[in-house]
Formats: sequence, C-alpha cells, structure tokens
Amino acid sequence: MATLGGASKKHKVAIIGSGNWGTTIAKVVAENTKANPELFEQDVQMWVFEEEVTVDNQKQKLTQVINSRHENVKYLPDIALPKNIIANPDLVDTAKDATILVFNLPHQFIARTCETLKGHVVPFARGISCIKGVEVTESKCDLFSDSIGQKLGIYCGALSGANIATEVALEKWSETTVAYDPPGMDSRHQTPVGSRRGSESGQQEVGMKSGHVAEPDTKKTTLKALPAEYPPLNHANIKKLFHRPYFHVRMVHDVAGVSLGGALKNVVALAAGWVDGLGWGDNAKAAVMRVGIMEEVKFGKTFFSNSVRTETFTEESCGVADMITSCSGGRNFRCAKMSVAEGKSIDEIEERELNGQKLQGTSTAYEVNAFLKKEGKEREFPLFTAVYNILEGNKKPEDIPDLLEDKDDE
Amino acid sequence: MATLGGASKKHKVAIIGSGNWGTTIAKVVAENTKANPELFEQDVQMWVFEEEVTVDNQKQKLTQVINSRHENVKYLPDIALPKNIIANPDLVDTAKDATILVFNLPHQFIARTCETLKGHVVPFARGISCIKGVEVTESKCDLFSDSIGQKLGIYCGALSGANIATEVALEKWSETTVAYDPPGMDSRHQTPVGSRRGSESGQQEVGMKSGHVAEPDTKKTTLKALPAEYPPLNHANIKKLFHRPYFHVRMVHDVAGVSLGGALKNVVALAAGWVDGLGWGDNAKAAVMRVGIMEEVKFGKTFFSNSVRTETFTEESCGVADMITSCSGGRNFRCAKMSVAEGKSIDEIEERELNGQKLQGTSTAYEVNAFLKKEGKEREFPLFTAVYNILEGNKKPEDIPDLLEDKDDE
Repeated sequence: MATLGGASKKHKVAIIGSGNWGTTIAKVVAENTKANPELFEQDVQMWVFEEEVTVDNQKQKLTQVINSRHENVKYLPDIALPKNIIANPDLVDTAKDATILVFNLPHQFIARTCETLKGHVVPFARGISCIKGVEVTESKCDLFSDSIGQKLGIYCGALSGANIATEVALEKWSETTVAYDPPGMDSRHQTPVGSRRGSESGQQEVGMKSGHVAEPDTKKTTLKALPAEYPPLNHANIKKLFHRPYFHVRMVHDVAGVSLGGALKNVVALAAGWVDGLGWGDNAKAAVMRVGIMEEVKFGKTFFSNSVRTETFTEESCGVADMITSCSGGRNFRCAKMSVAEGKSIDEIEERELNGQKLQGTSTAYEVNAFLKKEGKEREFPLFTAVYNILEGNKKPEDIPDLLEDKDDE
Repeated sequence: MATLGGASKKHKVAIIGSGNWGTTIAKVVAENTKANPELFEQDVQMWVFEEEVTVDNQKQKLTQVINSRHENVKYLPDIALPKNIIANPDLVDTAKDATILVFNLPHQFIARTCETLKGHVVPFARGISCIKGVEVTESKCDLFSDSIGQKLGIYCGALSGANIATEVALEKWSETTVAYDPPGMDSRHQTPVGSRRGSESGQQEVGMKSGHVAEPDTKKTTLKALPAEYPPLNHANIKKLFHRPYFHVRMVHDVAGVSLGGALKNVVALAAGWVDGLGWGDNAKAAVMRVGIMEEVKFGKTFFSNSVRTETFTEESCGVADMITSCSGGRNFRCAKMSVAEGKSIDEIEERELNGQKLQGTSTAYEVNAFLKKEGKEREFPLFTAVYNILEGNKKPEDIPDLLEDKDDE
C-alpha cells in the first residue's frame, strides 16, 4: 500500500501492436491490470492493424474476432485472451488517455506509428518498448526506445529477455528484464523494488537524456512529470504490470544494455552455430557464448558508457539467458550450424529454411561491422569481427579459436 | 623476456595422476614445457598408479606401455602423447625436485597421496589442483586445493573450466580458468598478465591463508618463498604452462570461486534437467541457469567472502561456460530430464544409465543442503533448496517457478 501514496487516479495502459509477441504481452498486461485494480484501470486497449480474416467460413474483421472470441486467431491462435483486452483498429483512439504505452510491433513500423501518434498521447505518458534489438548504421547505434521517446516527447524504457512469445502465451515459465530509468530515478544503483527510494516522484519537470551514440547526453528535451494524483511509476509498480507467476520480471535501470543484448546475441549465435557444426562440442559452443557476452559488455561500455552496466549482460535474462537460448535452438544458430555441417553458404540455408524470412544475425553482423570499422574498433571486438569476416568469406569457422586468442598478453 | 628476470634455473613440472583428465592435462603441459624452454625443464614426470594392461595379447605394465608407445592405452586411448611425458609408478620419485605439482586424480585419493608425498616435495614448490569440486559437509566447505596445500605445506591454486577431457585431448577448442593467488600477489585486482605487478617476487616468506569456512583466515602456515634463481611464478608464466591454441586459459585470483563453480553447477543441472523434462523449453532452462549462477555467487560471497568475486561465476569459463555445458548434455542434466520425462525416480535412472557410477549432482545437493541448514540459510538459496526438496519428494519439479519467485519485493 505504501506505493499508492493516496493516488486518486489509475493508470490506463495501451498496447501498440498485436502480432504474436504483442498479443502475448497484452495478455500478460491485461491479467495484471485486473490483478492490481488499485494501480491500473482494468481495460487494456490493444491497437490492431486491421485486416480481414476468415473464421467459420466468413470473412470478418480481425478486431471484431478478437473482441468477440477473445482470441487473436491470426497471430496467436488457440490462446484464450483475457476479456479486458479491447482490440482497437484506431491507433490514436487506442492511445487516448493512456498513461502507459507498451510498444510491441515490427521495428520498421516505429517511425510511421509514432508519426500518427505524435501530439495525441498524454504528455506525461511513459512508454515501454518490447521491440527487440537496436538500430545500427555506419554512423550511429540507436535504441528503439529512444527513437520512440524522442518522437513522442515521452520517456520510454525497454523489456527484453529469454522469451519466445508462444511459450509465454502458453504460460510456460520464463524470466524477463524490464529497464526503466526516467530522469529523476537514481540510476547509479538498482532501486530496491518496493522501496520509495529512486522512484519517480512526479514533482518536477526533468531533462530527458538521449542514449544514442551520435549525440551522447546533449539532446535534452523537456519531459512532463507524472501528476501527483497518479500512483508513482517506480520499479515496484512497473514490475506489477509485467510480472506473472509464469513470467518473472527483474527490474533494472540499464535501457541500453537490455536493448543491446537482444540485438548482439544474434551475431554470437552464428558463431556458436558454426562451431557446433564443426563438431567441436558443447565446450567450444559455451566458450563462444562466454566471449560473446563479454563483447556485448564491451560494446555497451564503449558506445553507451554513461548507463551500461556489466551485470545487465552477465546476470540478467536479457543478457546471459537470452544468449543461452539463442545459441541453443534459435534460427541464427540452426542455420549457421547447417551451413557448416552441409558445406553450404548461409544464404542458401536461409533461403531453404526460412520461407523468405531473413536471418537477423547476418544483417546485424554487417551493420555492427560497418559501425566498428567507422569507429576504428574492429580489433577490439574479435568475435564480432570474426563473424563478419566469415560471412564475407575472408575467414573460415575453423579460424575462430585463433581469431579469439589473446596474443597480446604473451 | 621481461618475465625471466635473469633466472638461472628452470621449473620442473610433475603431474600427480594419470586418468582420463590427468593424462590430458599432462599432454597440454608437456607441449608447453617444450614450447617454453626458457621457463620449464622439458621432461614432465607423470605419476601412474601401476597396473597391468593387455596390449598385443601380452600383459604389460601401464607405465611401460605409456613410455614405449606414448599412449595411455587404458585411460586415454588413441591419443598420441608427447614423448617428454615420463610415466612413473613411484609417487615420491615423480615429485622429486619438482617446483610445480599439478594434481589431477579422483578426490578420494587426495589424502592418501598427500600423506605419501609429505616431506618429499620441494619446500618452495607450488601446486595447481585440476580436481573438480569442493568438499562439503554439514560443518564446513573445504577446497581441494586448500587441503592439498595444507597437507604438503605449499601453496596450491586451481584449474577448472568447461572442459571434457576427451575433447581437450582431441584438441577441440575450449577455454579454461586457472586461479592462482599465492600470498604476496595483489589479489584485489586481476593481475595484468605479463606485467610484473602482483607477481610472486620470491623475496620473502609469507603467511598462507586457509580459505575454508570453519576457520576463516586464522590458520596460517609458513610458506617458503620461491628462490630468486627461478623464473617468477606470476600469472604470465603459469598461463604458459597451460595455454594452448586449442585450450585458452584465463588467469584469475579467485581460487574459491573457480572451485565452487565446478561443484555447484551439478546441483543446478538437475533443476535444468527437470524443467526441460517438463517440456518447458529453452527459456525456462536458461532461467534456471541464470538463477543458478547467481546462487553460486551468493554461496561464494557468503561462505568465502574474502576472496570470491562475482565475475568468476558470471564471466569465466569455470562459471558461466561450465554451467552452460553441464546444463546442455552433462549426465546430471540428462538423468534428471529422463526422470521427469519417464516419470521415474532419479535413482532408477542413475542405476540404469550410469553403469554403477553415481550422479555428482544429487550427493552435492544433499551435502550443500546439510551445510545450509546448519548455517540457517536454506531460504537464501531457493534453487539449491528446491533441488534438495524435489530429491526428497517434498516438492515437485513443477513447483520450481513458484519456489524461485521473489515474493518479498511486492
């Protein structure tokens, strides 16, 4: 009860996106708004990109099907959804009056979606991006949460972990990490969850930091403080929006670290797949993962030094656990393994196995390499650089141990 | 060359033990004594518990076979050994004049072996224990390296990593961790390998700390300093004894952490196996591993607080990588998974699958629980306690998420 602070209003939550993962997170959130009526309004609006689906031999609108059957027959079939999820085809109407916006849509739709939402969101709303990865180009490395936050003029945190949508939807147990660190929170230390310390006080307007590389810490926009009549959006209350008995949440402050883990693991998974394809066994694979985690840490500390903490990668679900999962059975791992085992190029395997979809790992490896090259730091990231060179045909998977050997210290 | 410091003598290395892992490490070490003639005498004596083997239809002594065929036909067949490994059936003669003793034998033989060696080792010799695990009883938690060191009156470090003997013998790439921290080394920071800082200077006699719980830091014996005519045994030179292109070594100071990782991972592997047996998928398994790593850290910090560092578990091969490997295909994992999948007790599976051998994980789980109970700390280690309670039949694998849920912070 200490977290309520005599609040007279409740938070209204909206979900922006309704794919496989978007609908799954909507289910989690809607279960929690119901379980925590003192903090949240029960109904959760979920924006659905309207389309026609055939149900019972009839063409129907997807929103109508979701709202009548309480099932997203197209993107999350056979999962019963809570009745307090309201599918809404109107993006602006979905976000209306929402004080918490959960973004969960393909990253290529972020710009367009924010363009539509701009000027229509509650000025003191807070966002959480569940979109995996980061946007890397030759000149910069941007967090999706930052892009969203900057476009809408709100603060946006991030959720990422070792999660497969369908497994979470089936309530198979997993963990996740939520990074939330609006200005005014004490980000030097993890806030003890449930304590008042470091919680967003809602008393003043504060500067919003941009985390991306190009303009570190300089681009401050004015962020509207949360009015005092709302329950504070501290770690304890944000956790209550996502934590379930089958979906354990750990809260951190490191938004950049949480986001980087979800992107860079795909590069590492390629190397793990190659090594496994060579028949080198579980220990070689574990070595690749260990080195990969440490290069993630180094990448974060080098390019997002203000906020990134080693522990985000080494101790949290978004780091070590997501790495383990991706290097166990993820598609990047599987395709890389097949490419070595069958002696085929990864492009051939991708085409055969992925039904037109593209591997995240290869494009991220190229993007990261272009960025590292520009920064003159290829040598400092021997694993990421090895993956690029193997993809380019300059090196072979067999060269990985030699490429990773720390020869400087002898 | 900076590491030689004008030494006029070279280190003589002896391997105590010649099983599967002992012979593999002898191979690694003998390759390195040959590759680093400025530091080490080339020949490596390896103690072999003498037995008769049948080769070419003739009964022969194992030492003679090893020395003539350069192959340990009994414990590491089909692997060519370097000719500078000298199998020796006489334990005391093996250790004679050796300044570096590498211990690699089943832990139940440590006491007897040290009893025989006592008074016959070079007083300023240094040891490295490759024996996995720790010795846990209700009243204490001892490191094998400490037991060896105390019995022989020498300093003893430890080697542990995600290593399977046969894979290392086949020169399949893996990583390992060597912990070495004799008194006089600056253990607050990792020594930059190759630097003089923190190296054993060999100038004075220094106290030897005992790391075990029962008598923390009180039991100091006098440790003989290494004479100045020998190359210093700093991290750079110890690394040269074990590092190979296919066996990458990282040096640390945290002997307790390195040893604990090798023991406690087996307890975690049981939980990972159960969860996998339930069909909960890779993410649940990764969550168990993540929680397991963090309980290892807590165990180390609680009971070996002076020396244990979080990074040993979260960043090194002996920690995170060994955990990943053990939870991928190790026998504890496999038997636990089968027991859930087939609805049988783990004892039944053990008997059927292990040909009379015993699972390390179950005995360690009981030992650790007895120790935690005595210390009144069961609740602080929910995963270790859950494994014990599941083995005892008090809880079921399905209860794991609930048992790990952090309810205090809501």
